[in-house]
Amino acid sequence: MRLSLTQENLSRALASVGRVVAGRSTLPVLANVLLTTDGNRLRLSATNLEIGINYWVGSKIEEQGSLTVPARLFAEFVSSLPHDNIDLEATDTNLTVRTPHYESKINGIAAEEFPTIPEVTTDPLLKLDSDMFRDALAQVVVAASADEARPVLAGVHMYIEDGQLYIVATDSYRLAEKRLSLGDDVTAELSVIVPVRTMQELVRLLGEADGELEMYLDDNQIMFRVGEIELISRLIEGQFPNYRQIIPKQAETSFDIDTAEFSRITKVASLFARESAGSIKLEIKAEGEVSIVSSDSEVGGNKSTAECAVAGEDGEISLNSRYLQDALSVIKSPQVTFAISGKLNPCVLSPAGDDAGDDYLHIVMPLRT
Amino acid sequence: MRLSLTQENLSRALASVGRVVAGRSTLPVLANVLLTTDGNRLRLSATNLEIGINYWVGSKIEEQGSLTVPARLFAEFVSSLPHDNIDLEATDTNLTVRTPHYESKINGIAAEEFPTIPEVTTDPLLKLDSDMFRDALAQVVVAASADEARPVLAGVHMYIEDGQLYIVATDSYRLAEKRLSLGDDVTAELSVIVPVRTMQELVRLLGEADGELEMYLDDNQIMFRVGEIELISRLIEGQFPNYRQIIPKQAETSFDIDTAEFSRITKVASLFARESAGSIKLEIKAEGEVSIVSSDSEVGGNKSTAECAVAGEDGEISLNSRYLQDALSVIKSPQVTFAISGKLNPCVLSPAGDDAGDDYLHIVMPLRT
Repeated sequence: MRLSLTQENLSRALASVGRVVAGRSTLPVLANVLLTTDGNRLRLSATNLEIGINYWVGSKIEEQGSLTVPARLFAEFVSSLPHDNIDLEATDTNLTVRTPHYESKINGIAAEEFPTIPEVTTDPLLKLDSDMFRDALAQVVVAASADEARPVLAGVHMYIEDGQLYIVATDSYRLAEKRLSLGDDVTAELSVIVPVRTMQELVRLLGEADGELEMYLDDNQIMFRVGEIELISRLIEGQFPNYRQIIPKQAETSFDIDTAEFSRITKVASLFARESAGSIKLEIKAEGEVSIVSSDSEVGGNKSTAECAVAGEDGEISLNSRYLQDALSVIKSPQVTFAISGKLNPCVLSPAGDDAGDDYLHIVMPLRT
Repeated sequence: MRLSLTQENLSRALASVGRVVAGRSTLPVLANVLLTTDGNRLRLSATNLEIGINYWVGSKIEEQGSLTVPARLFAEFVSSLPHDNIDLEATDTNLTVRTPHYESKINGIAAEEFPTIPEVTTDPLLKLDSDMFRDALAQVVVAASADEARPVLAGVHMYIEDGQLYIVATDSYRLAEKRLSLGDDVTAELSVIVPVRTMQELVRLLGEADGELEMYLDDNQIMFRVGEIELISRLIEGQFPNYRQIIPKQAETSFDIDTAEFSRITKVASLFARESAGSIKLEIKAEGEVSIVSSDSEVGGNKSTAECAVAGEDGEISLNSRYLQDALSVIKSPQVTFAISGKLNPCVLSPAGDDAGDDYLHIVMPLRT
């Protein structure tokens, strides 16, 4: 293998690919990135056996070939080099890296030892606007479980119904649902659960990549392709909870409030709620005021108040402040609607204001106090 | 105690004072900040028993008094509040904090339990330009030892000789010396060793404070005052090494080089020197080139080269790359001079260029390879 390419392109590719590399693995080659010439491009690949990534970079290929090298060292090295052309040359299992002022030899592992990243060879199931899908996904992944004890909850559920793509996650304490309109001509069928780590990685990749996102599916894998990047992931088997039944149909009390102001009083209250595992109480006054109360603990107590536009009667509910903070952090509209139906039923947050749309719901279960 | 002050002023003071608070201590009150009214100001104090800080903030005092409250909670709480006036009121050992929309009660500890921060009541020994002293100190503290095994090396040595203030630190592997001219009329006598943690804190404080720096000294303490802030520290007893003798008098080989370029090739080389504990070799060619070589190890090897203006003959020396990186990070001039006298003698880095001055030296001991 012998080729040359620009420092900028190689460095950007290595940064993205490096995030997929297995942290600590018993298989040393998983800490490496696979370099393979592919026509007039260099393909960089990495996998942690759950997620695989392929990233193509335009190169001047002098001699075809492939080799794996330690991903972290190679990425750090290339990112430290000046913006210049870089020559790569493989000899046995060594990679020689040359620029006008730098020459390094990196010890690698033969490409044959690298696990095969499965290929998905179907036609694309869906094509989506990258930015729109990234924003949608970022609003949902926050609600997924970090705990693998119930695998389906450590995933993001996507399904199509009546020309709409639903993206849902829940850790059983809160739930986020985003709806994207696909248009009437879309007849694709879809119902999958994708690991949340794949979706978090996809959010980051879409933030860097340009172009339309294509989604491919086969029996037990999903592939996302955007620009010169492919992300391939296993799917989670199992039945996603029938969550629709817990979405409250109507509200006894609701208010519209400035999102930043609501965030701020929640944050202040949470400082005093650490000993009580984040427990805070919202007190809503029909005349137009919401207070967040952290009850007295060893460190002290707090009451934070903001004005808001209330519909309905007085109400109160106890919540985990972290879930409320998470929900507010992903609602990007300047105004947010908060709705409750008594202190034992889940509360619903959604974007408010004229252009907010009705395509996003964030539900938080109450604490029984 | 009852008073009011602005959120900005209180938050800034708490951020500075909070850095001095003891991390984990068996004495709970050391995790607190002491609030004491003092005329028409509020004094905030903290101590970790090695360093003490007093920070005055202009306030509207309604009722004199004092109380201690948990420093971290109070600082986080105040920094989360909007820019507004804040009312503080102490009742027994509780502090009530009120703003138009927030009301908190923080549980404190009586002021009497707070250890006395010693007072230094002498006249000022020296008055110095804050920015100049901060820059000087920042160039020196990097060379002090982090290890308390030899206490004097975990300190910064300051002394006055022939109208010059010398600031020196060494961990026995490298040494930094900065010289500040005080002017002919300064007759003060000084020879102290100040804990490096005090000096690191002083660098930060001087970055935030305005005004001249005053230095006060008594038998076993030093106090720095700038604006409305006092930093009081114990001194380290003992004899600082007689370091002058190790400063090389002349160089067999030296070169001037772009500081950023030298930093960059050092950083790249250091990536390959991790297995060899940072060991790198500089090869200087009299015709105008320096190469940094990391010898082959399990990960690979590297040679990075830069052009430079060499005086003298060819030379080479082995160094710890971290010490070279540290030295280059505090030399702020665009050009730096690097000088050696054989591979067994220390090398000397100093600012180069027309306006660089000759008031700073950074010495690094070679590695014997």
